[in-house]
Amino acid sequence: MSLTVVGSVAFDALETPFGKRDKILGGAATHFSLSSSFYTNVNAVGVVGSDFGDEEWAVFKRHTINTDDIEIVENGKTFFWRGRYDYDMNTAHTLDTQLNVFETFNPKLSENSKNARLLFLANILPMLQKQVREQCENAEFVAMDTMNFWISSMKDAVIETVKVVDCVIINDAEARQLADVPNVITAAKKILEMGPKAVVIKRGEYGAALFTEKSYFAIPAYPLESVFDPTGAGDTFAGGFMGYLASQEKIDEDAMRRAMIFGSVMASFNVEKFGTERVDALTHDEINQRFADFKRFTHFEEIPFERATSAG
Amino acid sequence: MSLTVVGSVAFDALETPFGKRDKILGGAATHFSLSSSFYTNVNAVGVVGSDFGDEEWAVFKRHTINTDDIEIVENGKTFFWRGRYDYDMNTAHTLDTQLNVFETFNPKLSENSKNARLLFLANILPMLQKQVREQCENAEFVAMDTMNFWISSMKDAVIETVKVVDCVIINDAEARQLADVPNVITAAKKILEMGPKAVVIKRGEYGAALFTEKSYFAIPAYPLESVFDPTGAGDTFAGGFMGYLASQEKIDEDAMRRAMIFGSVMASFNVEKFGTERVDALTHDEINQRFADFKRFTHFEEIPFERATSAG
Repeated sequence: MSLTVVGSVAFDALETPFGKRDKILGGAATHFSLSSSFYTNVNAVGVVGSDFGDEEWAVFKRHTINTDDIEIVENGKTFFWRGRYDYDMNTAHTLDTQLNVFETFNPKLSENSKNARLLFLANILPMLQKQVREQCENAEFVAMDTMNFWISSMKDAVIETVKVVDCVIINDAEARQLADVPNVITAAKKILEMGPKAVVIKRGEYGAALFTEKSYFAIPAYPLESVFDPTGAGDTFAGGFMGYLASQEKIDEDAMRRAMIFGSVMASFNVEKFGTERVDALTHDEINQRFADFKRFTHFEEIPFERATSAG
Repeated sequence: MSLTVVGSVAFDALETPFGKRDKILGGAATHFSLSSSFYTNVNAVGVVGSDFGDEEWAVFKRHTINTDDIEIVENGKTFFWRGRYDYDMNTAHTLDTQLNVFETFNPKLSENSKNARLLFLANILPMLQKQVREQCENAEFVAMDTMNFWISSMKDAVIETVKVVDCVIINDAEARQLADVPNVITAAKKILEMGPKAVVIKRGEYGAALFTEKSYFAIPAYPLESVFDPTGAGDTFAGGFMGYLASQEKIDEDAMRRAMIFGSVMASFNVEKFGTERVDALTHDEINQRFADFKRFTHFEEIPFERATSAG
């Protein structure tokens, strides 16, 4: 029961219609590991500068996340992203990106991180994802994310990584772009043909879908009246998904379906406050409550239609 | 067990990336009644010109749709719409609209149509919808559609009609516009506050959601790799939804949930060929097969997460 994630640890500056924050904890590996820590033991692999402070480390410590493989670059500055959301919360407008120590990020995995049963390759340079995957040769289940930037600039390298993972977790626009087809169902099938056993398509407020060679599973999103800050929702989803799978003895179709729900539940909390605030304060009761809500609002009785015969 | 629909009967000319048709049977009342005829006895109320031919009438006859209240205007021409879809099948580009006899449509309901147990007010002038609703005072369940054009130009009149129906069936953009809020969940709640017991939000390839005062139900769309012609999908959904409800003794939450599935199933067939072609040739076995598919691809076991205790 262990899980390693490799990805960014960052400071975010955010403006939304509901408020702003100048410098809060962010990054894919942060959101992922925080979310998955509710289900399993997590090793985070990343890099920060010496500006990364006690308050930030405390978030990881509170959730017993192993940060031994988060490298600290003395006199370096942590990756910084500034973004803005308008009322259409589906689109982040990037105002500033300072890669800083992340620009030369070269993940160094301890034996402990290498030997995790599950591995998540968050959105980093695809060649690095592949190198990390090869270092974790005993991992039972490896998933990856990527982004439009890599698909545009080095699709071949993205595909080389897709070939060596068990599961791809991306959003619908990325799936269409990667498979180069307009239909998302066809796109998912084409990505499956590249090698992975499973493809998870994240659709934001419209939910998520899981594709395997022989099955299809789709769920709506948790119904939220206010989305406060969507930053990190995708990584929080992936953290719930992978974290839950790490807690299960068998990683089969049934477990993956429940993992989709737990992923969606975690993402639904993440967007309710800025950054990591909401998930940081989450309880298992709250999680299981929303899991039960999902069952309630997707359930229907399977009664085929039978044409009534005339009376008399 | 009967259902009346009031709306347009039309000729459509269509261009899609997959082909074109110069003049095929269309219109909201057509798609709705064809879809609902698989579940119940349907009365269609509309108007056509003398150019409406044997081939068109044959579609209604084949499905035992009562066309007594489809008025024929001698020397008049039937409502004509020409549209184009690009690869983004979610958006119809209107190239030409000739209202013809539909411009002065004044629905005339026979006693039989007035006494139907269920009534569907397809997208027509909201004042006409209200007049029809008032003529059917004994109807047990009345639903309506509308469109962005009426919401922009006469929102008050739309709301006056919303107040006197049991259910509003619209797409997500229309719901946001009608309630004047960006969030679709909040929009649905605001529409419920206007009077109806239920609001159904159609989201095209993303599925559909049902809102009542005390419950929420959401489903993904049937996964289709090729959408051939989306014209009439919304009315076909409403036809399956209302037709199925008409077949049920009790119109309660459980029945409405199944009706959402049957509506989605009917819409999924509708888009597979031009116009009414696919639904016209449909069988109950095919319908029940897709209903069962829906159960299969939305099912998960409800097992809350329990943190495992350490071994030993």
